[in-house]
Amino acid sequence: MITALDHIAIAVPDLEKAIKRFMEDFGLPFEGTEEVIPAQTKTAFFPLPPTQIELVHPLEGQGPIAKYLEKKGGGLHHLCFRSDNIEEDVARLKEKGYQFLSDSPSPGAHGSKVIFIHPKSCDGVLIEISQPADEAH
Amino acid sequence: MITALDHIAIAVPDLEKAIKRFMEDFGLPFEGTEEVIPAQTKTAFFPLPPTQIELVHPLEGQGPIAKYLEKKGGGLHHLCFRSDNIEEDVARLKEKGYQFLSDSPSPGAHGSKVIFIHPKSCDGVLIEISQPADEAH
Repeated sequence: MITALDHIAIAVPDLEKAIKRFMEDFGLPFEGTEEVIPAQTKTAFFPLPPTQIELVHPLEGQGPIAKYLEKKGGGLHHLCFRSDNIEEDVARLKEKGYQFLSDSPSPGAHGSKVIFIHPKSCDGVLIEISQPADEAH
Repeated sequence: MITALDHIAIAVPDLEKAIKRFMEDFGLPFEGTEEVIPAQTKTAFFPLPPTQIELVHPLEGQGPIAKYLEKKGGGLHHLCFRSDNIEEDVARLKEKGYQFLSDSPSPGAHGSKVIFIHPKSCDGVLIEISQPADEAH
């Protein structure tokens, strides 16, 4: 079941500049950054419980965010919904006709499992589903 | 001062279909729709306190959301930050070099005042600032 809006991800071309913008200019609480190896990003976290804003920047210029930035320069990249049983949600959504960017969930940050719905299945919106490690079955 | 992430707006080509998707497929709480005349949208509200997801669709095929849909088909449209003093925030951000889509705030839904920062000032992200009526000075 989907239980929450986990985060909103924004792709940024200059992470330090964007952190400064969201922290100083927009006054959001900045928690820190993390290198998320599976996603090939360096991510900055701004917790706004129960959701958070994540600024994502390519790690060593590689991966899907690098391609997105090359094409678009930056922008609202995806929404992520939290699931308490990702396999069940993927099966349920596949049955309804949703297409996914991979066959099954893959490792995300902090031992989570994540999968992306194809934006064509959501009118152009890229949606991630994530199950945190502590909700794993 | 910016006090909260007020909402995340998603432009959708078919409002009824998108409401069904977010309500039934993603399990979000649906509050209802409203015709937001100043924005030329019919908007569906999914409260996720202290923020909310808003699905925006052009009213009578007119306005900026109609143009966005023509170009992109749909997608993550903007973030909105809530302000307790919009004139002060606009002046502060203008001083820092931010450009806005209008000279000063204009009427939004429910007596609010709203203004949009030019996406060029935020690395491609469209950001709205909104001051609710009950926080007006």
